[in-house]
Amino acid sequence: MRFARIATPEGLTFAVIDGQGTDHANLTAKQIAGTPYTDPEFTGKQWPLSDVRLLAPTLPSKVVAIGRNYADHVAEVFKQSAESLPPTLFLKPPTAVTGPGAPIKIPDFATKVEFEGELAVVIGQPCKNVKAANWKSVVRGFTIVNDVSSRDLQFADGQWSRAKGIDTFCPLGPWIETDLESFDLDNLPIKAHLTHEGVTDTKQDSNSDQMIMKMGEILEFITASMTLLPGDVICTGSPAGTAAMFPGDSIAIEIDGIGTLENPVERA
Amino acid sequence: MRFARIATPEGLTFAVIDGQGTDHANLTAKQIAGTPYTDPEFTGKQWPLSDVRLLAPTLPSKVVAIGRNYADHVAEVFKQSAESLPPTLFLKPPTAVTGPGAPIKIPDFATKVEFEGELAVVIGQPCKNVKAANWKSVVRGFTIVNDVSSRDLQFADGQWSRAKGIDTFCPLGPWIETDLESFDLDNLPIKAHLTHEGVTDTKQDSNSDQMIMKMGEILEFITASMTLLPGDVICTGSPAGTAAMFPGDSIAIEIDGIGTLENPVERA
Repeated sequence: MRFARIATPEGLTFAVIDGQGTDHANLTAKQIAGTPYTDPEFTGKQWPLSDVRLLAPTLPSKVVAIGRNYADHVAEVFKQSAESLPPTLFLKPPTAVTGPGAPIKIPDFATKVEFEGELAVVIGQPCKNVKAANWKSVVRGFTIVNDVSSRDLQFADGQWSRAKGIDTFCPLGPWIETDLESFDLDNLPIKAHLTHEGVTDTKQDSNSDQMIMKMGEILEFITASMTLLPGDVICTGSPAGTAAMFPGDSIAIEIDGIGTLENPVERA
Repeated sequence: MRFARIATPEGLTFAVIDGQGTDHANLTAKQIAGTPYTDPEFTGKQWPLSDVRLLAPTLPSKVVAIGRNYADHVAEVFKQSAESLPPTLFLKPPTAVTGPGAPIKIPDFATKVEFEGELAVVIGQPCKNVKAANWKSVVRGFTIVNDVSSRDLQFADGQWSRAKGIDTFCPLGPWIETDLESFDLDNLPIKAHLTHEGVTDTKQDSNSDQMIMKMGEILEFITASMTLLPGDVICTGSPAGTAAMFPGDSIAIEIDGIGTLENPVERA
């Protein structure tokens, strides 16, 4: 099942997206009374998806991210081996979250802003001390995140939360896919397509089989320290191929079984 | 004026604390209908403060912290000069927040947990791109934060959000003092008193005049990147004197004009 948050002529609401594929013309948004974290209770109202606007599918209380979780990305950004630089944990602020189609706005002091296409986990229930083998029991579904990062600030600050925490630097969407069994995490393609001056290049073309810390380990690692709450988001790490974006560009992250998260890039 | 969040026999509520000094026996909690971010509307209900329990005075959407903002602390923890390691920004998760008197719970994998007594800013209105000179216009008041930090994890991870983001590692309180004019930020004593095996030592005995990035600069720096929301908390940095805490200890942070934030330390 796909859960989305949408802007309708009558206001913002959560909805279940009905239909096959990712073409909005073939999909319907069916309003639900509550949140995506319980069985959906349909209100009876619905809209063609092309008549409404998709928003970030969750308003997380926190966005926890695993950095350096793909060996190829560690090599390209940190110029070191993953053995010498193990995965680490950082936070992105909720105010960085933005939705599909909304602009990534680059302030003038961020001079090397890159996309990072990642598989994102949306938490389904309050949880602490989750064992790796039980990770699916606390996860509501997957979505896509673009962990936008200003490399200049990231290395100047040492701590990453400013470089990765600027308003609009956390696009999320297009929806939460709850059918965890439909994903093969040992073989899930993750791609990023950058459109610059009208030309689209596939910059990231990797696979979740490259993840160093696997999904169960990630949930166990984070929840040994922090309680996670429904709607919280975990960014599971970026594979290689990250590259700079400039105002006027458009960046599309594509993950099989979810769809595409596309955002234009603007000057703030 | 002092705003608090309290647990009463009738439930949780925000309140204005009436009376002078910090002795709970002389203070009254007067319930307000809304939040601390507007002029208080009193409901008429009130309790002697000694009959209710103080909670963290805000439920922040984010806790933004300035690290390495006191030269003496940079020297003691990082063994470098503040010139070579300028202030930096990191985030603590809202799930780390706890209230006065609530235990700081140390998990077994955190083997060198230290207190950091700090002046905390509570934001009063949504704000972005605040100019340094205007910082008071967006601040609701000051409170005290203990930026509890597990030094082993802090240095092992490189990123600080896990070491400083464990549940209960962000005690806040006892209340929000809104009278900004009553504080002399060029001369505000900040102290931490650690009680270990029945003996109390004053470990931190510093002054806000040691801050490298001043209050206006902090607000301008953060809000150039991130929108701040009412209730958000800024930790303005720890002075020297941080030290390890152990289960059975008690740690009290004292700031003139606010009061004392005291928490026992337990094994998680």
